[in-house]
Amino acid sequence: MTSIQPFRVVEVMEQAWAVEAAGRTVVHLEVGEPDFGTPAAVVEAATRAMAGGLVRYTSSLGLPALREAISGYYATRFGLDVPARRIVVTTGASGALFLALAATVDRDDEILLTDPGYPCNRNLILMCEGRSRPVPVDSPSNYQLTAGLVADHWDERTRGVLLATPSNPTGTVVPPAELAAITDLVAARGGLCFVDEIYGELVYDAPPVTVLAQPDSDGCFVVNSFSKTFGMTGWRLGWLVCPEWALPAVEALAQNAYISPPVPAQYGAFAAFTEPVWAEVAERRAAFHRRRDLLVEGLRDIGFSVPVTPQGAFYVYAGCSAFSEDSFTLARHILSEAAVAVVPGCDFGEHGAAGHLRLAYTTSLDQIALGLERLARHLRPG
Amino acid sequence: MTSIQPFRVVEVMEQAWAVEAAGRTVVHLEVGEPDFGTPAAVVEAATRAMAGGLVRYTSSLGLPALREAISGYYATRFGLDVPARRIVVTTGASGALFLALAATVDRDDEILLTDPGYPCNRNLILMCEGRSRPVPVDSPSNYQLTAGLVADHWDERTRGVLLATPSNPTGTVVPPAELAAITDLVAARGGLCFVDEIYGELVYDAPPVTVLAQPDSDGCFVVNSFSKTFGMTGWRLGWLVCPEWALPAVEALAQNAYISPPVPAQYGAFAAFTEPVWAEVAERRAAFHRRRDLLVEGLRDIGFSVPVTPQGAFYVYAGCSAFSEDSFTLARHILSEAAVAVVPGCDFGEHGAAGHLRLAYTTSLDQIALGLERLARHLRPG
Repeated sequence: MTSIQPFRVVEVMEQAWAVEAAGRTVVHLEVGEPDFGTPAAVVEAATRAMAGGLVRYTSSLGLPALREAISGYYATRFGLDVPARRIVVTTGASGALFLALAATVDRDDEILLTDPGYPCNRNLILMCEGRSRPVPVDSPSNYQLTAGLVADHWDERTRGVLLATPSNPTGTVVPPAELAAITDLVAARGGLCFVDEIYGELVYDAPPVTVLAQPDSDGCFVVNSFSKTFGMTGWRLGWLVCPEWALPAVEALAQNAYISPPVPAQYGAFAAFTEPVWAEVAERRAAFHRRRDLLVEGLRDIGFSVPVTPQGAFYVYAGCSAFSEDSFTLARHILSEAAVAVVPGCDFGEHGAAGHLRLAYTTSLDQIALGLERLARHLRPG
Repeated sequence: MTSIQPFRVVEVMEQAWAVEAAGRTVVHLEVGEPDFGTPAAVVEAATRAMAGGLVRYTSSLGLPALREAISGYYATRFGLDVPARRIVVTTGASGALFLALAATVDRDDEILLTDPGYPCNRNLILMCEGRSRPVPVDSPSNYQLTAGLVADHWDERTRGVLLATPSNPTGTVVPPAELAAITDLVAARGGLCFVDEIYGELVYDAPPVTVLAQPDSDGCFVVNSFSKTFGMTGWRLGWLVCPEWALPAVEALAQNAYISPPVPAQYGAFAAFTEPVWAEVAERRAAFHRRRDLLVEGLRDIGFSVPVTPQGAFYVYAGCSAFSEDSFTLARHILSEAAVAVVPGCDFGEHGAAGHLRLAYTTSLDQIALGLERLARHLRPG
């Protein structure tokens, strides 16, 4: 338990509220969820279901028709045959990753993952009595694992790798060829890949990718969610694509740990996989794309280091060594002086943490422009 | 993982659907959730919130105002001062128990609990790498632990006890004096009490009880839920009352494991703690009371053994040795011959399992009467 730390971002948000309570307007570049709300069609579908009394437990694996709809998503979007029986609807992506890890990770098994990376993933491994082994990653590898890094760090205690593509906090992806090389290597060693694809629909320079397109994905667990793609964060609905062999364990765990995924969300989710909502997702994607371009260019102009343009999600992981060698203090300074809220690197690991900030473009172009203006005014090379 | 078994009740339900698909109507006495739906006021509150865009993550601990409302429940219902900061809103009661166990149970710590008991509780202990130590209980102790049983089974590996009052599958409660004796004993040994009070509002012969009324409850974690009291099973919303000392660990776990409890459910839940909804709960309680009386008397007349009248929840744990020494086969026989669905004792443990069935009164008086008629017609003393 003592190894699980609360997030600094929570402190940042509380500090930001305090600044606002004192009468200043804060530009919020710390928020890790889309500002776009839930599409009206999803809200309406959930509302109709609730009004019709559809509020009782579903199967622990989710509504069969929703599992079919997710299977249909892989067919239409990627041309892949992912049978519904391999799809488990979960309580958010956290629930999906927990089920995958709890079903497969034995005591003291090691999982390789990136430093920097999303801290909850690391902590879920700890909660399953496994060990996370952070691999320092930098811009030359797109801040992602490579087959070479995996090979270098694999030892007899390694059970698998955890990839997040696109990643939080870097917004970078694992290129398809590298993804193939990693899954081949892991398969050859009899290991597992846990692949977080929750930002998979939010990519800006190339079509979306799923590890399930790899020829041998029988060692792969894919974690996905309605949260980021469809603006459904608070609904807590995700899914796990699970290899056949792991289904009995995952099902038993789901029954005991969650009973059932949230039901209003499941009925709402049906409406997510429809043409009008996909059109809305496309508009949102285009908006995120414009914001990314503005923020990345603006940060570079001010003197931040962004050596790899982030290809997806809604984060920029910006080197701030030009201004300070202590990003935690810098983040506090930026909030109190410039009234811009950003997250220090230490929320995402140790490697290079003191030299980086995460900025999220989950706010309007106007707000991003204002934030950049404030940063330019207040930051002086240190 | 191999020690976590799926529930037989799922098989029973699937078998019941098959019987229905073959054209017969089944009397459903297997269902562990109330047939009463969610009160309209709750649905309306959730709908208003969603329509207003309140769909984003809340604090991992839940909306502050909802935590205050739950604190208010303890004040008005029990005259207790349970500060909101000790109340954590969770993803169902399962989420609450998981947080409490994960925050406190170390590897191989033992938790005493009843056999028979609710299997998910046992399995959540396993998932937290603890060990459940089932204590066989029978009608003389109300199918509950007593201070004497706890003392007899406590050893150097024991970390605490898990109580469920009223209990699933027996519907029995721990009498207040015994509850005091157990908590005193556990406190004296420096242990913890995990108390499942999810059926606490569904008691028929005495006012509701909470362990929080005990003078020293600093070692007590209370698990509760909106599911059973308010007909909100599918919404997945519960709460944990946590001792002050455990709050930091519970908060860190909640952030990582769940991010946030389901948000539509949280907004709906505000409406649960209002006078008109409590009036509806009172009506439902009265309806359950009438059903219990009909079912218990009817079962006794047929020859089932119900030595303790269940005081709460909506279950009867009925001894069936007059008909068979193998309740699993008997349950299948009752379903295929009498078209009545019941759950065999083996879903709830080993002690006396082959001699018991669980019957739930989550259906109308008419259906219960029909079920009893069918049982009377098809069952012959074995």
